[in-house]
Amino acid sequence: MQNGSVIKRRDLLALIGTIAGSSAMYHAMTSLGFASESAYRGPLKLEGNPKGASVLILGAGLAGMTAALELRKAGYKVHILEFNSRPGGRNWTIRGGDSFVELGGFKQTCEFEQGLYINPGPWRIPYHHRALLDYCRRLNVTLEPFIQLNHNAYMHATRAFNGKPQRIRSIKADFRGQVSELLAKVTQQGKLDEAVSKEDQEILLQSLRTWGALDRDYKYSANLNASEFRGYARDPGGGLSADPLPSDPISLSDLLRSQLWRYLQAFSRYNFQTTMFQPVGGMDMIGKAFAREVGDLIRFNAKVTQIQQNGSGVTVSYVDTNNPAGVQQAAADWCICTIPLPILSQLPIDVGTPMKNAIDSLPYAASVKVGLQFRRRFWEEDEAIYGGVSFTDLPIRQIGYPNYDFNRNGRGILLGGYLYEGANSFEFTAMTPAERVKSAVEFGAMIHPQYKDEFETGVAVAWHRVPFTLGCAGEWTDAGRAQHYRNLCQIDGRILLAGEHASDLPAWQEGAILSSLDAITRLHERVVKT
Amino acid sequence: MQNGSVIKRRDLLALIGTIAGSSAMYHAMTSLGFASESAYRGPLKLEGNPKGASVLILGAGLAGMTAALELRKAGYKVHILEFNSRPGGRNWTIRGGDSFVELGGFKQTCEFEQGLYINPGPWRIPYHHRALLDYCRRLNVTLEPFIQLNHNAYMHATRAFNGKPQRIRSIKADFRGQVSELLAKVTQQGKLDEAVSKEDQEILLQSLRTWGALDRDYKYSANLNASEFRGYARDPGGGLSADPLPSDPISLSDLLRSQLWRYLQAFSRYNFQTTMFQPVGGMDMIGKAFAREVGDLIRFNAKVTQIQQNGSGVTVSYVDTNNPAGVQQAAADWCICTIPLPILSQLPIDVGTPMKNAIDSLPYAASVKVGLQFRRRFWEEDEAIYGGVSFTDLPIRQIGYPNYDFNRNGRGILLGGYLYEGANSFEFTAMTPAERVKSAVEFGAMIHPQYKDEFETGVAVAWHRVPFTLGCAGEWTDAGRAQHYRNLCQIDGRILLAGEHASDLPAWQEGAILSSLDAITRLHERVVKT
Repeated sequence: MQNGSVIKRRDLLALIGTIAGSSAMYHAMTSLGFASESAYRGPLKLEGNPKGASVLILGAGLAGMTAALELRKAGYKVHILEFNSRPGGRNWTIRGGDSFVELGGFKQTCEFEQGLYINPGPWRIPYHHRALLDYCRRLNVTLEPFIQLNHNAYMHATRAFNGKPQRIRSIKADFRGQVSELLAKVTQQGKLDEAVSKEDQEILLQSLRTWGALDRDYKYSANLNASEFRGYARDPGGGLSADPLPSDPISLSDLLRSQLWRYLQAFSRYNFQTTMFQPVGGMDMIGKAFAREVGDLIRFNAKVTQIQQNGSGVTVSYVDTNNPAGVQQAAADWCICTIPLPILSQLPIDVGTPMKNAIDSLPYAASVKVGLQFRRRFWEEDEAIYGGVSFTDLPIRQIGYPNYDFNRNGRGILLGGYLYEGANSFEFTAMTPAERVKSAVEFGAMIHPQYKDEFETGVAVAWHRVPFTLGCAGEWTDAGRAQHYRNLCQIDGRILLAGEHASDLPAWQEGAILSSLDAITRLHERVVKT
Repeated sequence: MQNGSVIKRRDLLALIGTIAGSSAMYHAMTSLGFASESAYRGPLKLEGNPKGASVLILGAGLAGMTAALELRKAGYKVHILEFNSRPGGRNWTIRGGDSFVELGGFKQTCEFEQGLYINPGPWRIPYHHRALLDYCRRLNVTLEPFIQLNHNAYMHATRAFNGKPQRIRSIKADFRGQVSELLAKVTQQGKLDEAVSKEDQEILLQSLRTWGALDRDYKYSANLNASEFRGYARDPGGGLSADPLPSDPISLSDLLRSQLWRYLQAFSRYNFQTTMFQPVGGMDMIGKAFAREVGDLIRFNAKVTQIQQNGSGVTVSYVDTNNPAGVQQAAADWCICTIPLPILSQLPIDVGTPMKNAIDSLPYAASVKVGLQFRRRFWEEDEAIYGGVSFTDLPIRQIGYPNYDFNRNGRGILLGGYLYEGANSFEFTAMTPAERVKSAVEFGAMIHPQYKDEFETGVAVAWHRVPFTLGCAGEWTDAGRAQHYRNLCQIDGRILLAGEHASDLPAWQEGAILSSLDAITRLHERVVKT
């Protein structure tokens, strides 16, 4: 934000503000990319006549339904083929009564209490995912905050602190405090004299004292000031039992060796910063909202078997999964294919070598999510943990607390494990669903001993065994992206790909939508030119 | 958490766990004060027979209604006198159609759209306010998250960055990054050799690189890694327009001199850490929930004029504010007085010198809150700010964004100023309500230029002019607390005081409730002994 081009834009904006008023200025700010850094520039306007062109869309996930919604609005004839019997794809919520079958034949039927759910796929929406948020607004999807950082949740390392989970607030405050004390010390010793001016050193010391909760002597120590960040041994109270007691900070060496500092960045990242959202009632409220608009265009239970094209159009073969004997065909002038690459790479498809190589090159991340129902919300009642995530080096990696029904009596669902990449994801994928649930309960009990008494039922989704994706999301390397990404996204004859795999936001719903908007914008340019 | 007594408790807990199972262990953990550091130990159990004793409670705020609810349950005869025509006291929400008069005679009638509101008093509930949260659960008050830290809100200093507001995420990431770079540099130069072992220095360098988003050379610089914390110049996107662009960090010197680091602690403090809450629909849902339980005990519009006691009971004189001619009297065996001290200090009250001095000693903080209605939610639409608070050195100090109706079209209410202590609070208190609103709009427009076009109507509450408190909350100094606090809380004959002023959580609703619970516990002990 400090570079020359921005300053020039600012001068321009000031001028616009002076001449035309603040609303015009803000409109200009948005147009100039000032107010938002997102690539999304508001509802898509496809100008020009598609002259009756038809588009066949493969997949009724968010990418496919975005394309359908916008292309129909622009005057195209649109149809969608969808493998599942529901819209949304990985935009998916599992509730009591739902059943699903994974590769290998294991069938799970969810036994959660009415009103409780787990999102096995995407579960959170960052504030800067402007396209997704705009569709939520336009399609009347009600949102509520998703808590990513909960200061009272835990960080846990098997080999640190005798395996006792530590409150995030304490690790966070202690790391900052210890670092501040160290830097204050070398500042006072004159060891920054080469790097920082004397005047700035004075302000630096003040800022470290404030920021790091240091005492008068620039020490981070057991006192009420440090406790006001890391938490107290006894909280302030009322009446004659009001006096608080300070807690004892963890030493720098213990902190460093615990490795718990590795988790501190998890909630500072752009994708995980406040304010995050989730749809009220489950992530699939978004897929359902899209389907209210374009559901009439979707043919469900349609398994694509071949994608052919020639100079005049595209022909897609598919079978009805309820009646797989007869192969059917659908044809259109153009095809937008959002089929996940682990599946698409197994299909015969008439595209050139660059796109085919790109399709075949991209591995998908292994990921497993486990949803566990408990008799009571012990994490709130016993431990004052409301939403957010605990981090652990156990194979389950994370425990996610529900961000709805806060502070109520009764049952609740934990995300009992969220494995992403790594050997443990493959190990859990290799297990039966029942084994995954059992294992998540056993590991989780090392953090929450109440698991043993309170656990009731669970489901486990291993994305490598989910028939409609065979993986969680595209796992690009820098080298793979440099070699294949643009070939994947180019129009190949009459075929375009879209989805999170064709974006620089892999695994995010925003990536799927922005990929789709970019693809249909380019398609439309070509159509109106010809 | 590292001291001897805790380790002993832990050994005991392990033993209980082994013998009696995890539920018994957790019950014991709570009893031993392990699971929660709060003074609150679950619903109050007052055992023993009060033998028909009566208690007159002055004030139907949270302290008074807590006392009424628990004492009636324990068998006391209870009555409440309340100055206002509504329950709750400072637990107060202003909606369209509400009107109120302040000292000086200014009457305001709120013209907010139906469904929109402002909480002029308390507006947030920390996760560790266990007593308040337990009452919310027991009284069926639905809660939703209150966003305190919004990374995309602003920090603003009039004399820094040419007065341009900076995104909190950038200041937060840059301060951490610059501090990490400095400390990494001196570590590499061997300047920590006296203070930190070589082995720990190695881990320290790794941790600073991760935590501070440093590059391979331990520099904090303009690259995609730093942007993943401070935000991008252009966000990652989809298709062929996917490439992100890094943003430029602010230099250490500019950061230090901006003084914006002063605000960084505002959301790390124990009282402001995630997860925070607000009641759905307005803070007064709590007062109303209490009133559903004890409303039948409240005499509204009762202005206390004198509090007398002798060896056998208490007699309180009051006037009906709608008919102030005749003085009435209420009598009981005991009195719990929750009247704010700026008012109580002006009343004749039969208590000893120590309590009277304590009552007279406590100044109340000056505070002003301004609620502003805007035609559209431009902070969300234009600036992607959903909830949370922007901080500024302008007299308005804070702009609070609504934590409800996220991402919807239509009107919204901003907290257009939250002044607490300081000269600006007194200046705003001295203005007429209309001047306060006008001033808040003018200052706010320096951060959000859209104010000028979008502002519709506002209300402003200056707590020093609110007739039922004459101040916002007790403002204890360490010296004042040492001299007077215990005298304020002791039972004086048949009179006890309760409220946030009689707690170590001044200005917090939890302080009022814990103070009340402590007071009635001591009262009950005395009653059952006699």
